[in-house]
Formats: sequence, structure tokens, C-alpha cells
Amino acid sequence: MTTDNFVHEINVTWGDCDPAQIAYTARLPYFALDAINAWWEAHFDGDGWFQLQIDRNIGTPFVNLSMDFRSPVTPRHKLMCETYPTRLGNKSITFGMKARQNGVLCFEGSFTCVFTIADVFKSQSAPEELARVIKPLVRADLA
Amino acid sequence: MTTDNFVHEINVTWGDCDPAQIAYTARLPYFALDAINAWWEAHFDGDGWFQLQIDRNIGTPFVNLSMDFRSPVTPRHKLMCETYPTRLGNKSITFGMKARQNGVLCFEGSFTCVFTIADVFKSQSAPEELARVIKPLVRADLA
Amino acid sequence: MTTDNFVHEINVTWGDCDPAQIAYTARLPYFALDAINAWWEAHFDGDGWFQLQIDRNIGTPFVNLSMDFRSPVTPRHKLMCETYPTRLGNKSITFGMKARQNGVLCFEGSFTCVFTIADVFKSQSAPEELARVIKPLVRADLA
Amino acid sequence: MTTDNFVHEINVTWGDCDPAQIAYTARLPYFALDAINAWWEAHFDGDGWFQLQIDRNIGTPFVNLSMDFRSPVTPRHKLMCETYPTRLGNKSITFGMKARQNGVLCFEGSFTCVFTIADVFKSQSAPEELARVIKPLVRADLA
Repeated sequence: MTTDNFVHEINVTWGDCDPAQIAYTARLPYFALDAINAWWEAHFDGDGWFQLQIDRNIGTPFVNLSMDFRSPVTPRHKLMCETYPTRLGNKSITFGMKARQNGVLCFEGSFTCVFTIADVFKSQSAPEELARVIKPLVRADLA
Repeated sequence: MTTDNFVHEINVTWGDCDPAQIAYTARLPYFALDAINAWWEAHFDGDGWFQLQIDRNIGTPFVNLSMDFRSPVTPRHKLMCETYPTRLGNKSITFGMKARQNGVLCFEGSFTCVFTIADVFKSQSAPEELARVIKPLVRADLA
Repeated sequence: MTTDNFVHEINVTWGDCDPAQIAYTARLPYFALDAINAWWEAHFDGDGWFQLQIDRNIGTPFVNLSMDFRSPVTPRHKLMCETYPTRLGNKSITFGMKARQNGVLCFEGSFTCVFTIADVFKSQSAPEELARVIKPLVRADLA
Repeated sequence: MTTDNFVHEINVTWGDCDPAQIAYTARLPYFALDAINAWWEAHFDGDGWFQLQIDRNIGTPFVNLSMDFRSPVTPRHKLMCETYPTRLGNKSITFGMKARQNGVLCFEGSFTCVFTIADVFKSQSAPEELARVIKPLVRADLA
């Protein structure tokens, strides 16, 4: 089944690679978070974590991440990070991701964030201004 | 129960922090990998991933990582990363980690690597020169 | 005077920023090197440092960088890195850069690299396959 | 002439290296800034940039950095970053650095920061609480 989820493209380069000539493992969570930030930007008028925090006083700190590395990431192809929410809870949101190069699955992962009132770093329910946009995008079938 | 596992100390600084004044989430897998590399250095005569790869032709690429974030990491205290193998399989090794600041658990995680013949990027059984050192250190009780 | 130099766009995000809510200083040389790598990609059929090194056996290690920081870099606007060679010497190349956000100069810099035979890390004259492309692009007036 | 300047030690690892098996150039300004932050910590009761900003409302943003790369940085030896102020101006401070591995000079650099009132990001004269500590440490002879 093909999906039409959001895909964030990353240009992997020399500086991302280690002496094994593949992207250093610790770069991959960075790429994943870049993709999740880009997902926010794409669905909220350009607002990523920076604008959510500063302009809307909403934080979404991570409480868990889990990643499986399937195939090395290299500078030979763009890294296409398919990114989608798999669950919107009362106080949390979970994202799924499948990152591919040239059609080959490189890594997949699950990432859970909670909603906070940013300036007091206190948990809150999913703000309505976010929830109404997120709900129709949830891909429970991919959880 | 107290343990006497290996602990790697990290000096968290300004440059690790994001505008929420805590370490940026994507820095935490970096810290975790620094601690695992330091574990190799501490138990194999200073040989970390670089020397394992170049001098011993042994790679240990990651196939999975999973982390739970319990409390924010800040520059206020050193980050003490308690690091230990929890399982040595025929072809893989799993590390556990508990990272604390001032006695407070900040994150914990599990990290699985496979053994490869580095120059051909081919899977291999745990090399005997590594296995004999690792076996007595395995903390199955912490898996 | 307007120029039609190569411009590399960078999406500055939350994770690039420090607690002062601006991009951490040490991220700026990273951005600059990303722009220079992108310059190579744009002018050599997609070949950046990775492909130059692995496929063409050409290295271009840096011997100097100098940057002036004029205005903070933030996630509010794309960072547009105008990048151009200012000098092609017998054994070296110097790049200039002006990085702007929303028309405001954020930093400018000069970056000098030497040419090497990559697999022996030995200095060489500018390879002809590179020199013939670079020469007409040199902006000595911007040095 | 030997000096007794402050030296910050960095453990260079696999993850710092690129496919040329040496530290990636953009990591070197990171290392340099880590050393300067450590210089502040060492001379101001553990206060680095984070504490200066949050607790003392003092910022020291960079306005210039210039680095010469003399020899590759590798994981084979600790990187010893000798760090010292070379000039204390009315509104700025300049640091010099010589970074060595196994006695070999790897890079040297000059780094100029201005003093700001942090919460308003406004320039100020060197705060007296800093100036009285810094003045006797200035190595004008190394500028």
C-alpha cells in the first residue's frame, strides 16, 4: 500500500559520515528529529518547535524514542523521512517514521512527546489548536 | 542495590542546550554513544570504535536503540552515564544505560550492536578477544 | 551591486539554537561547511566531498577559516549562504561567503582548502578536471 | 618558552571523524568553543556560558573566529587545547588557543567575544567581577 504521508528530505553529506563511510549512528536521531520538526512546520504554517515554544508557549518534549537501523545511510542518495503521527493521546503524541534511501528502508522509529505549557515546563492536554489539525492525520494503522 | 558498573562522566554545556535551557533531545543519543565508546575504551586498553575498526578490523554497528527520557539534562551537574552490557549473544551485544545528574535518573536506554568484519561490513560472531572480556561483565539482571 | 553567485539555503531550527534563542556559534562553521559542500555538489554533477574523496580520490582539507559574526542567526528566516571562490591558487582554493537572513548579513567568512591526493593525504596541484570549472567562477573582486 | 596556561583536554572519538579518518573540520570550532567554555568554568567557580547567562545575566557572544589547521586531529591522542586571553578590551575579550596532540600543533586560533547584558542582548563594558580575574591572565605576548 502506498501512503501520502509527509516526507522530509535530508541531504546526507561527508560531515555526517564516520570512518566506516556511512552516517554516524548518533546522527540518525538528529535526522529523525529534524524530520519531526519539519512535520510541525509543514502542518502549522511554518511553526516548528522554536515558534511553538516562543510564540505559542507550547512545548513538546520527548519522553521516548526507539529506532531500528535496517540499512546504512550514505551520501549516495537523499534520505527520505516519511513521518506521521500514529497516536494522539490526551497528553501525548507519538510519531512513526520510515526513512529510505533510493527506496531501501534505512531506519524506522517511534517517538513519543508530551505536551507542556512551555514557560512553566508543566504537562498539559493536547492544545485544541494542535489537536484539530493532528487528529485527521493520525495513522493508527502504522503504529 | 548499588552496583559497581562503569560510569562515564559528561560535562553538559551551553552548546548542548536548546532555548528551553535543557540539553536538546538529539544530544542525548550522542551522549549515550559517547558513554558506550568510553566503555569499550575502558575495557580494551583504550581501544574505542576507532581503534577496533582500524587496528582490529572489528565493527560494532548499532541495529537498535531505545531511550526513555525521565528528567531534563542541564549544565547544572555532571551527567553520570552508568553503562553495562546486559546481553552477549552469538552475533550481538546489548548495552544498558542509566544516566543520572545529582542522583536523579535523567534517561535510561538499551542499545544493541552486531559484530562485523569491518573492512567487508559482514556480520560475524562475537570475536573471542572481545567475548572473554565481556562475558563476566554482563548484567543480565539489569536487562 | 547584486551578484548571481551560488546560494545555499539552510533551515535553522530549534536544535541549532542555544538558551539565548539564537543559533549556537559553533553551528555557524557547520552551516558554512554545508554551504561549501553544496557548492561542490552544484558545480560537479552532485559530487560533494564524499564523492570527490571516494570516487575521484581528491581531498580538499581546510587549512584556514575566518568568520565575522555580524547579526544573530535565528529560526525566523532561512539562512541564505552566498558562496563563491575568491582565489584559485596552484595548490589551494579560497572560498568567500556572505550568509544572510531576510536580507540582513549574519556572518561572512573566508575559507581556504588545499588539494590532496586523497588516499595518500599528499598535497597536489589543483586537478585539471576541477580547475577548468572553477576558474571562470572566481570572484577576485569579493576577496 | 613553556607557559602554564590553562589546558582543556578533549577525547576525540570515532563519531568526531569523517571518512578520511580524521576529525571533521567543523568539529574543530566545536572543540575550540568547548575549551573556551571550560576556561570560564575553571576561572569562575565552575560558571561556564550557561551560568554566566542565567545566573549572572552576562553574555559573551562571539564576533570573530579565525583558525589555522596545522595537522590532522585523530582519536590516537588526547587533544590538549591550551587556552588563554590575549587581550581584554573595554567591551571585548580575545582568546588565543593552541591545540596539540602528542606534542604536535594541530590547530591554533583567535576568538573574539563582546560582553553583553544577556537578557536585553545589549553590549556592555567588561563587568568588573570578570575583569579583575581576567586581567592578570592576559597573555599579550601570545596575541
